[in-house]
This record gives sequence, structure tokens and C-alpha cells, in this order.
Amino acid sequence: MNGNMLIAHGGGPTPVINSSLFGALKEARQHPQQIEKVFAARFGAEGILANDLIDLTEVPEDKLNNLVYTPASAIGSCRRKLTEPDYPLVLENLRRNNIRYFFYNGGNDSMDTCHKIHQLAENEGYDLKVIGIPKTIDNDLVDTDNCPGFGSAARYAAISALELSADASALPIHVVILEVMGRNAGWLTAASALYKDEMHSNLLTYLPELPIEKKTFLNDVKSAMAQGRGLLVTVSEGLKDSDGRPVADTGIEDGFGHKIAGGVAQALADLIIAETDLRARAEKPGLLGRVSIAHVTEVDRQEAIAVGSFAVKSAVDGQSGSMVSILGHREAEDFSFTLRLVPLEHVANHERKFPLEWINAEGNGIKSAFHQYCLPLVGSSECHFLNLREGT
Amino acid sequence: MNGNMLIAHGGGPTPVINSSLFGALKEARQHPQQIEKVFAARFGAEGILANDLIDLTEVPEDKLNNLVYTPASAIGSCRRKLTEPDYPLVLENLRRNNIRYFFYNGGNDSMDTCHKIHQLAENEGYDLKVIGIPKTIDNDLVDTDNCPGFGSAARYAAISALELSADASALPIHVVILEVMGRNAGWLTAASALYKDEMHSNLLTYLPELPIEKKTFLNDVKSAMAQGRGLLVTVSEGLKDSDGRPVADTGIEDGFGHKIAGGVAQALADLIIAETDLRARAEKPGLLGRVSIAHVTEVDRQEAIAVGSFAVKSAVDGQSGSMVSILGHREAEDFSFTLRLVPLEHVANHERKFPLEWINAEGNGIKSAFHQYCLPLVGSSECHFLNLREGT
Repeated sequence: MNGNMLIAHGGGPTPVINSSLFGALKEARQHPQQIEKVFAARFGAEGILANDLIDLTEVPEDKLNNLVYTPASAIGSCRRKLTEPDYPLVLENLRRNNIRYFFYNGGNDSMDTCHKIHQLAENEGYDLKVIGIPKTIDNDLVDTDNCPGFGSAARYAAISALELSADASALPIHVVILEVMGRNAGWLTAASALYKDEMHSNLLTYLPELPIEKKTFLNDVKSAMAQGRGLLVTVSEGLKDSDGRPVADTGIEDGFGHKIAGGVAQALADLIIAETDLRARAEKPGLLGRVSIAHVTEVDRQEAIAVGSFAVKSAVDGQSGSMVSILGHREAEDFSFTLRLVPLEHVANHERKFPLEWINAEGNGIKSAFHQYCLPLVGSSECHFLNLREGT
Repeated sequence: MNGNMLIAHGGGPTPVINSSLFGALKEARQHPQQIEKVFAARFGAEGILANDLIDLTEVPEDKLNNLVYTPASAIGSCRRKLTEPDYPLVLENLRRNNIRYFFYNGGNDSMDTCHKIHQLAENEGYDLKVIGIPKTIDNDLVDTDNCPGFGSAARYAAISALELSADASALPIHVVILEVMGRNAGWLTAASALYKDEMHSNLLTYLPELPIEKKTFLNDVKSAMAQGRGLLVTVSEGLKDSDGRPVADTGIEDGFGHKIAGGVAQALADLIIAETDLRARAEKPGLLGRVSIAHVTEVDRQEAIAVGSFAVKSAVDGQSGSMVSILGHREAEDFSFTLRLVPLEHVANHERKFPLEWINAEGNGIKSAFHQYCLPLVGSSECHFLNLREGT
């Protein structure tokens, strides 16, 4: 099978989505017999529909190398979810450009799109190899050990929490609340607790999987602050209250129909100020958590490159209708991985939530089982913050 | 003159305030004839008033080395401003501990405290050498080229803006608004525009020195977004509206009687959503901008160590009533500095605002004169983000 290749990005970029693009492009150049021209869709699904493609066939190697140090999406992404009436046009544009290898790099919504394109081509008898490349900082794809993008965003959350904790304990005049991305899955917020043992302040962590009860939350905060070491609270942007409603609800929906949560940290700070005699402030780095090049981990970068490369190799080998999945191998703090394919229909539209059994009984902390899972992906803090306030 | 030394931190920590502590402690150990014991006040003015001192005389050297990689304050800080009735107790505690060298590391409020302690000792005939050590991420101290802490926080703002810009242009579905610290002085927010020429999106920047007019702001945003490259807006937390009121007013005052601004980015995002057909989101890293060890610059670290060291050396030489000031020497992108003393009364309670002549005529951008001032302190981005959307 020979023809052209198309790669597209879907949803929010990760710090390493361009590393997957790098892996895919490098691999494609190894197969000039099968892959003639290499196209990327400009702005994801929008580019596919508008037949707006970027020809990457001739981009010099040394330029491509910059991809692994470029955050966001070098080819552009979108939040447009393809709907049924869009698909005939998708197929038409694939045919028009003689696309025979199609790669969609995204999360569970994108895997659904990917699956539908695979089915459509099959139904229409158009020979097309379709492979999904996983990415999401939320780590909520099923059937994979972890998702490329998560490790780096997790390190950002973990280091940010450790640094904020230093500030919260050095100037313990207010409760400091850190809002972490993750609408429905608490993986990233849990990562903010990874370096808890090194923190100089107390730490409370609340995930979206477990609704909070206002009174319990305020009691947690008051008793933690009473210990005089300062307090950092880390919360997921999608935290729910005991009625199951987002603590902060912007009322806005994104292109996939998901509600956009926002301002939960500020809402909780306001609550603390209103209901206690404590002061509080909110930090919401938001998108910064998915673009920080300084916090990209080598494991994550290597995973991302590998899944991109493996996708192209699999398609050239004749595979289709699958997503590349990571099998993790952990030995103490070391991590290695192998890759395999899993059916797209197993992954599409499913969400892997954070396991409830990894949340402590009080609902305000993370158990060590998660550390064993996550620390090898994120690495040790490499920080040795000095606290002269509590003994020299 | 021989006796003991006391060092204290005042106000919000910087990423390098502990480097100044390191410089001061190392220098103190060079003068065992004059300086017998070395104390730090636990939590700044609170520790001075409570006679709660940490004895650092015997802390091993290798432990001290960690100070230059520790954010926040290793000895603790506070926001308590000493008032007239406090001063007799301050003097009593200084006498009680035979403190003959006193160093206060802080911003303009702390320099006021420092000055008053100097005057008090002089009036009471108590032989005390008092030197102020400058620090503030806000860069708003007068009579110094720049303030230790600013360079690193400025790099955090500049890199964060560059990274967010990549995201805003790769997924241009919303206006991205970044809130930067700085209540009254726009230096840090201006730094967010340092790498504008490398950005893939448009950029608008608003400082607290120049009030914004709602309609003009919305027109700026709409025409910038219309260019299709995405838009990043960077704003100071203390941005004022055309009536001179903070755009976001929490109604809360800190211990120095300053109003705490908060949520200006979210307020502007809400405004854009309400008044245009655009979408917007707000990022507020807040305290993260003053604790990020990854973004500490070598110039800033060296300045911070040097001002701490110079303060102790000057006091041992018999100087008092002064603050250490930095004289900057710029040659292209290189920066070197020398130190001198300036009278505390020149610095106390004064604020150096961002020069209005460095703001563009539209009030939404920064002129290149600022780049010439700031880039040598912050360094080049060292980023080469790839944008394949606009030509390969």
C-alpha cells in the first residue's frame, strides 16, 4: 500500500505532543516506498474539513529536532468534535489527497473520531490505515499504563506544589490554594501531592472523583492551619460539591460539550475568608501546566516520541483501527516501557478515573500506592529546600 | 565594635532572598572578631518582637549551600509592619541579645522599618549598625538599578508568557489572559512582553501605571483576535480602570494596609465573554512567580548573594543607616554590577513606578527601551519554538 500520510492533533496540547509528531515524521521518512508525501492538518479537525493541509515532506531534519523542545501544537489543534454530517467531507478530502495513512493524536474524544474515520473508510471500501496516538495531560485514557503528556504535567504540578508549600510555610499568613487542571480525573491533582514528605507546610488534596462537603473541608483547613506550619491546599479544577455540582461553574461549554470549570481555588479561598477567621489566596496556573518546557521529563519525551514512531510503523505494517498503548515496567523508581496496539473502540469515549482506593479515608490526601505508580514517571524532586525555622 | 548579628526578612519572599541570607552568613563568618553569634528572626518582625531568634552560628557550611537553591524564606517572613508602640520592645530585645549588627532584607516598607530602628538606636545611644538589604520581585525600590528577586521573577513572567503564547496560537479558540504580580508597579508585567518578537500569537500588555478604558480594551482584543494568530493578554494584578479603581478588588487589606488585588485576569475574561462573541480564559500563577527555582537567573542569584555579603561587610566597616544599592553596567546583552550604599531615608516608603515613556502610545505594549534595560537581567529565552502552521 503506498500513498500519502496525514497527521492531526485534537484537543488541548501537551508539553510533548510535538515530540510524538517528531517521532511520527522521523519514522515516515524511513518508509519512502509506502509513504510519499507527509501532510499535517492545520488546526486538527478544522484543517481536515477545510482541506487545509501543511506539507511537511521536505522540512529539514534540523528544523524537526526543535519539535521536541516546542510546547503546544506546532501544527495547530482544535476542540471541534466531528459530527455525523462531517464525515463524508472528511473521506472526500482524504481521497482527494490520496491519504492512505491517517494518524490522530489526541485523547478519548479524538480516539472516537479516529475510530469513526476507520469505520467509514472500511464501509466505503477506501483503503486507509488509521492509528490513534495517545496524548492527554489528564491521564484518563483506558488500556494504557499512562498517557504521553501526563508525566510532564504531573511534574509541573508536583514541583509547583512543593515550591508553593515552601512559600506557604515561610509566610503562613494565609491558606494557599493551588488549582490543578483535570475536569473529571484527578491524576494531575494527585501528582501535586507526590513530594508531600518534603513539604514544609501541611498539605490537603481534593480530587474530582470525591465530592467535598463544605463543613468537612473547612474543618480540615482549620485544624491543618492550627498546627502553625502553614497550609497548601491542592484541588482539581473539576472538584464537585456534595450535590455533585462543580464547586466553580463558569456555565460555559467547550466544543466537545464539556462544561468548563473555572475558579474553584478562588471559590474555596472566598469560602475560607467568609466562614473562618483565616485568610486565603488562590493560584491558578491553568494552561501553564501544559506548556512548561522546563518541567518536561525525559521519560515523557521518550514515550511521546516512541508512540508517534510506533503508530507509523504499525500502519506501514498494515495495522489499522488501533491506538498505541503503553505497557509500563516499574522497578523501584525506574521505569521502562514497551508498546502495543489496542482496539480504538476500547478506548473511544471512555475515561479512566483516579482509583478511589488510592484516596485516603478522610478524602483529603493520596495514598502511597499512587506514589509507586507515579513517581517513576515524574522523577524525584531534585530539590533540597532548607528550613531553618524548624531546627538548624 | 563586637557583639552579635541579627538578620530578618520582611514581606513576600523572592526566589533568591535565601541567597542574600547565604551571602550575609558567609560574610559574617569572615569577621569572628566583630561578629560573635549570628541570629535570624523567626518570621521577621514577629520574631524580633517575640524575641524568637534562630541561632545560625554553628550551621554547617554544606547545609548553608542549599540556601541558594531554596525558594521562599528559610527563616520565615511576615507582613506585620512595626508601629510606634512596637519600637521600645524591638530595642529591648536587641539589647537583651547584644545585637550590634542588624540587617533587614525587604522592600520599601522594610526599609522604613530599618530606618526607624537605626534612628531609635541612635537616639537611645545604643551602638547598632543597621543596613538594609534590598529585595522585591516588584522592582519598585528607588536608588538602585534593579532589585534582587526581580530578574528571576521577570524571567518566570517572560517564559510563561512565551509558552502561553504558543498555546494561544496553536489552539486559538479563546483569548488567553495571564495575570502577573505587581500591585502598583508594572515592571514584572512589562517583563512578560520581553520575548514578544518570538511569540506566535499576538500580545497585548497592560500595566497598573496606566488605567484601562473598557471600550478601548475590548476593541484592542477584538482587532488582535481578528488576525487569526491567537491572542495572549498580560495584565498586572493591580490594573486600574478609568476611575482609578482596581479592576478586581477583593476588598481585603494586607498587614501593611495595602489593598490586595485579585482576579483581574478572570474579571477581564468575564468581560470579554459578556461583551463580545469571543471566548476567554484566565491564568493566575500568582505566588508561583516568586518561588520557581527553575527560572532563577544566575545574574539575580549573584546579585542577591553579593548584596547580603556587602551589607555585612559595610556594617563591620562601621557603616549604618544605609541600604545596599546596585549600580548596573550594560553592554549589549551583558550585565555586570557594582555595589554602594544609599541612605535608608531616600528609599523608605518610596515606590519606583514603571516609566510611562516606556509604554506605547496605545497603552497596550512595551517599548524597546525597557528591553534594553531588562533583557540583560533576564537573559534570552533560549527557546526555539517551532511553528509549522505559518510556513515550513
